[in-house]
Amino acid sequence: MREKVLAGIDLGGTKLLAVIVDAQGNVLASDEQPTHADQGAEKVIKRMVALVNGLLGERYALSGVGVATAGTLNPNGGIIEIATNLGWRDVPLGRELERLLGVTVTVENDANAAAYGEWKAGAGIGTQDCVFITVSTGIGGGIVSGGKLVRGFTASAGELGHITIDWNGPQCPCGNVGCLELYASGTAIGRAAAAAAEADPARGARMLALAGGGKMTSRHASEAAKDGDPLAVEVLREAGRALGAGLVSMIHIANPELIILGGGASHIGEPLLGPMREMVGERVIGSMGRGVRIVPPTLGTKAGAIGAALMANA
Amino acid sequence: MREKVLAGIDLGGTKLLAVIVDAQGNVLASDEQPTHADQGAEKVIKRMVALVNGLLGERYALSGVGVATAGTLNPNGGIIEIATNLGWRDVPLGRELERLLGVTVTVENDANAAAYGEWKAGAGIGTQDCVFITVSTGIGGGIVSGGKLVRGFTASAGELGHITIDWNGPQCPCGNVGCLELYASGTAIGRAAAAAAEADPARGARMLALAGGGKMTSRHASEAAKDGDPLAVEVLREAGRALGAGLVSMIHIANPELIILGGGASHIGEPLLGPMREMVGERVIGSMGRGVRIVPPTLGTKAGAIGAALMANA
Repeated sequence: MREKVLAGIDLGGTKLLAVIVDAQGNVLASDEQPTHADQGAEKVIKRMVALVNGLLGERYALSGVGVATAGTLNPNGGIIEIATNLGWRDVPLGRELERLLGVTVTVENDANAAAYGEWKAGAGIGTQDCVFITVSTGIGGGIVSGGKLVRGFTASAGELGHITIDWNGPQCPCGNVGCLELYASGTAIGRAAAAAAEADPARGARMLALAGGGKMTSRHASEAAKDGDPLAVEVLREAGRALGAGLVSMIHIANPELIILGGGASHIGEPLLGPMREMVGERVIGSMGRGVRIVPPTLGTKAGAIGAALMANA
Repeated sequence: MREKVLAGIDLGGTKLLAVIVDAQGNVLASDEQPTHADQGAEKVIKRMVALVNGLLGERYALSGVGVATAGTLNPNGGIIEIATNLGWRDVPLGRELERLLGVTVTVENDANAAAYGEWKAGAGIGTQDCVFITVSTGIGGGIVSGGKLVRGFTASAGELGHITIDWNGPQCPCGNVGCLELYASGTAIGRAAAAAAEADPARGARMLALAGGGKMTSRHASEAAKDGDPLAVEVLREAGRALGAGLVSMIHIANPELIILGGGASHIGEPLLGPMREMVGERVIGSMGRGVRIVPPTLGTKAGAIGAALMANA
């Protein structure tokens, strides 16, 4: 008899990543392909089906499929209402995949799927209350409470980058004001580093040299800070403290035992994470902050696909 | 055969409120007594038991008990670790009540219990994703996601008054900075009204007259605003916008379909709630704000006791 497995697909703007997992989220096989979203939803869906069937081969039998993707979803029926990264509108992705694969399909917000994956099969194993936050170009995340994903009415809960940390702050492209993402994302760090170096080119010399006349990014700030460059250290300290202020709000709302902190910018390490932890220590309500661990994720780029697969089983 | 019921007790600093409810949360009987916490935990616990037994009489059989209370809880064993309003430390309330009443007892954060009660038996009936917020002396609340209370690792989730809306703002007694409660609670409104009237006694004349030389409160601001007093309207507008900014963060985190907004200060009405709604409309992520209803609670002061009773059954 064929072994029963779950399939997860991370449907991104540039690539499709598919995994086959067991009920514990162990990856049995994986594969990826370019998305080519511009070829239209129908062709992409066919490619998703072929990817899954290729992984199943003769050995595995499919018991459910989860798709992790960005955009505005209607969770009933797995409809992608608007996905700017794909250029899609009102695509009944879940129903189409169900028709073609013959099993139940769930379509989930990608950050929430990653949160669920890291909780169930990664750094969160054994916990019941866990916040997952990813600091990269933007800031996203998800919350697991009492062993259940906080999914929300339109499957969009956990927009952790778009909580306000300054209600009189700058405008965010999302429509809100003073969002955490404006202060602590990789993009925000690059922007703050560029502004600081422009304002004081003497102190900014090291970062300016690293950027070499091109666009300054969080990588340049990170590299300069590793050499002890005072301006880079200041920029990262401010971003880290903003991130810590955001974590305090998340702890006060979700009361987690564990925070899983990932994403490219989290690799900046101590110059960002030291001030972040300091801020949490200074400001969190004692009884809620006591014992909260902050750890890196363990599943890497497959977290979303693994989580989506496991949610198909939830 | 006796009808099976649940008992809920709201253990407050000044009074004990007990209810007997059916599985739907309909109140079959209720009673209250002064707490007299200063007499010590043992006597209060005995009074709680007598209160419940009095309500049960010959007619009802107890199938579970929930207690709603403030303070730091250890949910395992129902221990009240620190309750400043009662002056208690490390009281094994749940275990004692279990011994004396012979049924399972759950001890819950009072705001979370009220959120659960309003969701399950009040304004939230029929929803699955719901935020409850109470604006009174302070600001508290709770979140229900997917039909389950976001309870947290130490049963303290949903500290909605202590999310930051200005990370460079004033110090909050909780330890955090720029908490929503500092801008939009009844206490904050009274404080802002007093400061505004002091800064401009001519414009503040109406509110100063209402306060009559005593401490200015949110009631004075509310009453003056009802007469169209421009300074009172300004003060309430600022508080309402701050409240709206907080709601935006909550919507982005919890993605609810319903927000239940209660507490004494919510009775200020339009001068507070108009600017609050305006702020949400301006700033919330469109797909998450679309269709979110904001409604008053329906259970009144019994919400915490009813919710705790129902949580004993969850």
